[in-house]
Amino acid sequence: MEKALKEVTPKSEDFSKWYTDVVRKADLMDYAPVKGFIVIRPYAYRIWEFIQSDLDARFRATGHQNAYFPLLIPQSLLTREAEHVQGFSPEVAWVTRGGGEELAEPLAVRPTSETIVGEMYARWIQSYRDLPVLINQWSNVVRWEKATRPFLRTTEFLWQEGHTVHRTEAEARAETEQQLEAYRGLLEETLAIPVVAGVKSAGERFAGAVETYTLEAMMGDGRALQTATSHFLGQNFSRAFNIQFLDEDGELKYGWTTSWGASTRLLGGLIMVHGDDRGLRLPPRVAPIQVVVVPIAKGSDREAVLAYCRALQLRLGAHVRVHLDERDEFTPGYKFNDWEMRGVPLRLEVGPRDIARGQVVFARRDNGEKTPVIADDLPEAVDATLNEIQKALYAQAQARMQALSFAIQDYHEAVARDRRGFFWGNWCGRQACADRLQEETSMTIRCLPLLTEHDLQPQRSGNDCAVCHGPAEHRAVFARAY
Amino acid sequence: MEKALKEVTPKSEDFSKWYTDVVRKADLMDYAPVKGFIVIRPYAYRIWEFIQSDLDARFRATGHQNAYFPLLIPQSLLTREAEHVQGFSPEVAWVTRGGGEELAEPLAVRPTSETIVGEMYARWIQSYRDLPVLINQWSNVVRWEKATRPFLRTTEFLWQEGHTVHRTEAEARAETEQQLEAYRGLLEETLAIPVVAGVKSAGERFAGAVETYTLEAMMGDGRALQTATSHFLGQNFSRAFNIQFLDEDGELKYGWTTSWGASTRLLGGLIMVHGDDRGLRLPPRVAPIQVVVVPIAKGSDREAVLAYCRALQLRLGAHVRVHLDERDEFTPGYKFNDWEMRGVPLRLEVGPRDIARGQVVFARRDNGEKTPVIADDLPEAVDATLNEIQKALYAQAQARMQALSFAIQDYHEAVARDRRGFFWGNWCGRQACADRLQEETSMTIRCLPLLTEHDLQPQRSGNDCAVCHGPAEHRAVFARAY
Repeated sequence: MEKALKEVTPKSEDFSKWYTDVVRKADLMDYAPVKGFIVIRPYAYRIWEFIQSDLDARFRATGHQNAYFPLLIPQSLLTREAEHVQGFSPEVAWVTRGGGEELAEPLAVRPTSETIVGEMYARWIQSYRDLPVLINQWSNVVRWEKATRPFLRTTEFLWQEGHTVHRTEAEARAETEQQLEAYRGLLEETLAIPVVAGVKSAGERFAGAVETYTLEAMMGDGRALQTATSHFLGQNFSRAFNIQFLDEDGELKYGWTTSWGASTRLLGGLIMVHGDDRGLRLPPRVAPIQVVVVPIAKGSDREAVLAYCRALQLRLGAHVRVHLDERDEFTPGYKFNDWEMRGVPLRLEVGPRDIARGQVVFARRDNGEKTPVIADDLPEAVDATLNEIQKALYAQAQARMQALSFAIQDYHEAVARDRRGFFWGNWCGRQACADRLQEETSMTIRCLPLLTEHDLQPQRSGNDCAVCHGPAEHRAVFARAY
Repeated sequence: MEKALKEVTPKSEDFSKWYTDVVRKADLMDYAPVKGFIVIRPYAYRIWEFIQSDLDARFRATGHQNAYFPLLIPQSLLTREAEHVQGFSPEVAWVTRGGGEELAEPLAVRPTSETIVGEMYARWIQSYRDLPVLINQWSNVVRWEKATRPFLRTTEFLWQEGHTVHRTEAEARAETEQQLEAYRGLLEETLAIPVVAGVKSAGERFAGAVETYTLEAMMGDGRALQTATSHFLGQNFSRAFNIQFLDEDGELKYGWTTSWGASTRLLGGLIMVHGDDRGLRLPPRVAPIQVVVVPIAKGSDREAVLAYCRALQLRLGAHVRVHLDERDEFTPGYKFNDWEMRGVPLRLEVGPRDIARGQVVFARRDNGEKTPVIADDLPEAVDATLNEIQKALYAQAQARMQALSFAIQDYHEAVARDRRGFFWGNWCGRQACADRLQEETSMTIRCLPLLTEHDLQPQRSGNDCAVCHGPAEHRAVFARAY
């Protein structure tokens, strides 16, 4: 295991290599036979299940229901909304043969489901009484990507996609914002990842959307990751798919639609925000194993220590997800490294002397601290420590985002800082400046931030565009992104 | 709504039409643009979620973990196991273009995942210490079917597929049987569907399996539905995919594998076992709404009755899934029919006179009985009634299976009974007899039943094959199947 640890490239040396080393060593994924596809192994999939149940609870609390729409979409449907097809068709995988025959019409493996959902909604919705329609789907999608990276960008990925229809523009806009807040809850409260909320510039919008909202998180190397998006689609899709309803006033009107999604890319974000040179660091709320008990005993003490640990496991099992590492082929040191690599938030070490003293040793994954704890004080001490770790991971990520957020007047200031961080500057609003920024620096406009008390706000400086120095229209966050 | 009810063909008149009427009227599904595909609407999807969480709990309790393997499988992998590819290749959908280019090798949309899973397991498994591997996957699969029917046989369906590897044949066989019992638990305890457990004859085995176990359920028209299967794969796939491990004795050995699955076809079974001419009848354990409260009040009473019902909803909400039907555009009679169509197990009717008397009226969906219940006795009375309904639905299905299970000496006896039911007869074991049976009667050998105390066992009669009257090798259940 020390050898395995040594095989992990230090973060500071090569962040990208550190990432791919960790996802392999922690048994999170493996590469599939087809390039760009991955297998999500049980440990990572369990984290995904916690994300799913967190989001499901948030969605359900606001009246959403899950459903399932088909994987394959006829070419003619996909091309119905002009901007949408432009955005997605280069990435589509096509089924052209089925049941031994060439198909009359190629079928797209869904890259997203606005089109097929729109087609069905047009049938289901007749009257204002049928609105709002609030449906979410958990599914796999395929986008033929050129450059892929485990979890962050894979040809197939798992996600949820919400699709709603509303009677009025105001309701649809409120839904878009509400769902963004649902994602913020997941990110900040559950994944311990602070975010900057904002709207996308026109060039970064979802294909077919009127407005795209985003949550941008800062990774360990200062780069941005778009973690979740929520789209106000206006009447673009309802016009393309003829989603009309008879309103109370007797008039036939087009519905206002939204869509919003988050994917297994969040697993990549989780790793890149919290991980360190010893491997993963998982926030307790999504840790498959929250507490690992490692017995430390040899020879004649072994059975007594194991018996004590088994009782401990039973006692804690009702409160937390606990695992007892009974493997006898490994040393305690090996086990420490192994569970650290897997990011288990809290390790309990139990040896004969601890038992004699009526204590167990707590070893925290977030800060490496070891503290003896009176055995009588468990499981309260475990609960309290897990809560502290959850908060500490958030605080550390927040501190990094704070330290690496800069107000700039000119984009060369970002270059001088090696483009490491979030650079808050002004923007004239012209695509030409966004393009120039990207060409020269690989930085993009991550979002036009929604400024609330809640968000980080480096002081504004100057009133001209950080690229062309013409009159500024927007505050913007510039950063390199995954 | 009375009109809608009239549009449902009576079961006795045309069972097949009754089925397709009910799945539409109860808003369970809709037909997708591509033939053979369906949309699973929220009400049906919720039932599927209850099935998922039931199975997940059973699988987890026996050490299984979920993971996710890719949707697309290279042609060369799919063809590695000879029998397997023969069985599945006629049904495969092929992706031949991606990202704007023809692919060098066609990719199969998974019809099942033994091949891709086998490929990965060969990489992950080195030593006996890595065994058993106990992984389950929730996913969509595509099989290009000629004749489809909502839920029962669709081109795409949702399912879980378990894939395990074991050190010994005995362990793998025990796993196969254990998982069959997990399905039996779901079917009998949760879905209130009695089943006959058995092994498939060679002709009905999963392509590539050594032995296939099945649970056969009897639908409302006496036909059989294969509800779940569990396969002992021997070393067929481990040899084809080179799943080898170094055993404790230092020898390199092939693993023993199993796979097992259940799908959204279960939703079709649920409808066909319990439904009646008024629509669905859902077992309380999987009912999205277990209790619907219908206020019965006009004019000046309306607000007081609604307030009472809202308090009732709050009081019951902690115990059961309760819905209050506040719609003011429909009469109580319309609502009764509506919720009966949707199979809600228990309706609570509340009018001003009920409130004055301190009672609510219970209307059971399973038997149509109406009983006044003292309001003080809720929610215990609700719990008790839901339990009774769960049991009653099982008992009714069991009684039907009992009434329509016959011991036969010759297959013409089944024909004389219009092939309606499960016919227990002897079989010589030759495929020729199975083929003759199918050609002449459309009946198939559903299984060679595993005779336990638990199962129905019509008395054996005679000792010769019910088709050719040669010496019998097996007891068999003959039936027409979906």
